[in-house]
Amino acid sequence: MPPTIPEPIAWSTDRTIRILDQTLLPEEERYLELRTLEELAEAIRSLRVRGAPLIGIAAAMGVVMAAGRPAGWMGGGAAGQEDLSGVREACSRLGATRPTAVNLQWALDRMARRAEAAVRQGHGLYDALLEEANAIWDEDRRMCDRIGELGAPLIPHRATVCTVCNAGALATGGIGTALAPVYVQHRARGEPHVIVPETRPLLQGSRLTAWELQRAGVPVTLIADSMVASRLRLGDVRAVFVGADRIARNGDVANKIGTYGLALAARAHQIPFYVAAPSSTVDVATPNGAAIPIEERSPEEIMAWRGQRSAPNGVGVWNPAFDVTPAELITAIITDRGVVAPKDVARIID
Amino acid sequence: MPPTIPEPIAWSTDRTIRILDQTLLPEEERYLELRTLEELAEAIRSLRVRGAPLIGIAAAMGVVMAAGRPAGWMGGGAAGQEDLSGVREACSRLGATRPTAVNLQWALDRMARRAEAAVRQGHGLYDALLEEANAIWDEDRRMCDRIGELGAPLIPHRATVCTVCNAGALATGGIGTALAPVYVQHRARGEPHVIVPETRPLLQGSRLTAWELQRAGVPVTLIADSMVASRLRLGDVRAVFVGADRIARNGDVANKIGTYGLALAARAHQIPFYVAAPSSTVDVATPNGAAIPIEERSPEEIMAWRGQRSAPNGVGVWNPAFDVTPAELITAIITDRGVVAPKDVARIID
Repeated sequence: MPPTIPEPIAWSTDRTIRILDQTLLPEEERYLELRTLEELAEAIRSLRVRGAPLIGIAAAMGVVMAAGRPAGWMGGGAAGQEDLSGVREACSRLGATRPTAVNLQWALDRMARRAEAAVRQGHGLYDALLEEANAIWDEDRRMCDRIGELGAPLIPHRATVCTVCNAGALATGGIGTALAPVYVQHRARGEPHVIVPETRPLLQGSRLTAWELQRAGVPVTLIADSMVASRLRLGDVRAVFVGADRIARNGDVANKIGTYGLALAARAHQIPFYVAAPSSTVDVATPNGAAIPIEERSPEEIMAWRGQRSAPNGVGVWNPAFDVTPAELITAIITDRGVVAPKDVARIID
Repeated sequence: MPPTIPEPIAWSTDRTIRILDQTLLPEEERYLELRTLEELAEAIRSLRVRGAPLIGIAAAMGVVMAAGRPAGWMGGGAAGQEDLSGVREACSRLGATRPTAVNLQWALDRMARRAEAAVRQGHGLYDALLEEANAIWDEDRRMCDRIGELGAPLIPHRATVCTVCNAGALATGGIGTALAPVYVQHRARGEPHVIVPETRPLLQGSRLTAWELQRAGVPVTLIADSMVASRLRLGDVRAVFVGADRIARNGDVANKIGTYGLALAARAHQIPFYVAAPSSTVDVATPNGAAIPIEERSPEEIMAWRGQRSAPNGVGVWNPAFDVTPAELITAIITDRGVVAPKDVARIID
């Protein structure tokens, strides 16, 4: 099989949504057709479709799907007279699926504003929403390319880099955020080598990042999360690239649990630590990391893996899905609007 | 069921060895009868019996078992005339099972010296070896109690503490090393609360530590390894207690992979970081951590869990079982011979 970068989402026939079910990777590459808002909401909650940029795109597509339902589901009046309550309901239901990633709400806000403008201006609601969702997707693809161009020069020649979780093609509408510099460098000269922590509890590192990098022909070494500090001490890792689910105004970054420990280890070994994310991840309304809501997920995620129990019944569990890395541990933030020091990140927002 | 502390090893009938198969916990509490050296070596290599102090005890018992075989297996001459080649062979085979823990070699060296002395002095070889193995075991039990007494006062009132892997009853002949202070405090006043990282890849934290603490009635919260730094940032953890597989002359400590990252996080949050280990873990022949051999284990441990694959075929894997925590990150080392600063650890050895 020639090297390829997978595409985790697509329009299907009749403007329903086709997703790669990421919970089944790497053993099974199965695509699902999502035909209802409830199916999409379930897919987001259960991480069949995941990654901050990608769930923004998926949610925007969900609003289109909802608007495309026939028979008065969304008012169904003539152009300019449609009822917006269906759009508002779709935005509300999809916005409630996951609390930490800000791109989700950002994408839904764009869809709601576009719907209002369309009705106000007498344009067709469905066509306007379709155009807006496709614009969000296209912008995301270009954002990934831009992050790749800006980030690639930060990777030294013949380097090994480290990432965490999956901030690659499977998390975006393009070549990823944290992995975009890797893909750009790989195309240019077959480098770098990537250290991938498996990322418990849901193993997005081993199941998704190792899988997509391997398909693209990028050399990968998989490690357990507990090995991150030792690997950085070994001396071959020259840079760390991670994604972000939300960036606060002061430059603090919420990302997959484990990012903070990785940042501490990078600091201890003087290894540059880069956060790569679309500018839509910057939330100027959130003053600092302490104000970012952190999603806690089910204890079951830690107590068992695919039905194989690994903890005694009844034990207490703490399972936050994200952590906060303080701005002072971050070398720079790479966005589609440039590479900035964490303290300056709010300046890239209009 | 009343609170109990499990016993992972025992003499069985006819001086064969009975172990709790730790690979099957927490789902199944199955005991195995080990009747040959090869069965014991396999049990050590595959971690059915594990923990630095416990594999020292198991290996000593293995030498007794080998000496007890009938029909000339070990010379079989009259007292004082036995052939020592069988003892030497048993020591050599058991010593090759795992490279990092120094207690294993320490226990085997004691058995070999005792065998030589018995033959030299004309004492019965089998009885001498049985006495020596039981002495190693008894000393280990007292060592655990002493570490518990010395370590318990280091736990503040109503504290939460953090550990890693399993350095408890399942790793020793007594109440553990890192967990001994916990058990002593728990008996005295029902404290502390223990944060247990699951400890991938083999999940000794969730499968063993959570299980034995829960059985003993100690409150436990299980986390993924990637959550350690975030949990320490939360502010409730007042001390960290870990075990050791080998302590170098300069105070550097080899212990389960993940210990170094935990030590970096403890330093970042000014939380005391204690290593608890028998004095037999101190290896004055090893000048520093860089000289400690680190066992690398099979990629399969990271690529699958009980038959459920989590990584794509053919991906590269790095799987060191241990890491080295430098002396400067360690607040103190708690041994059966006292609590010492890491730089002074060689002074407790005769």
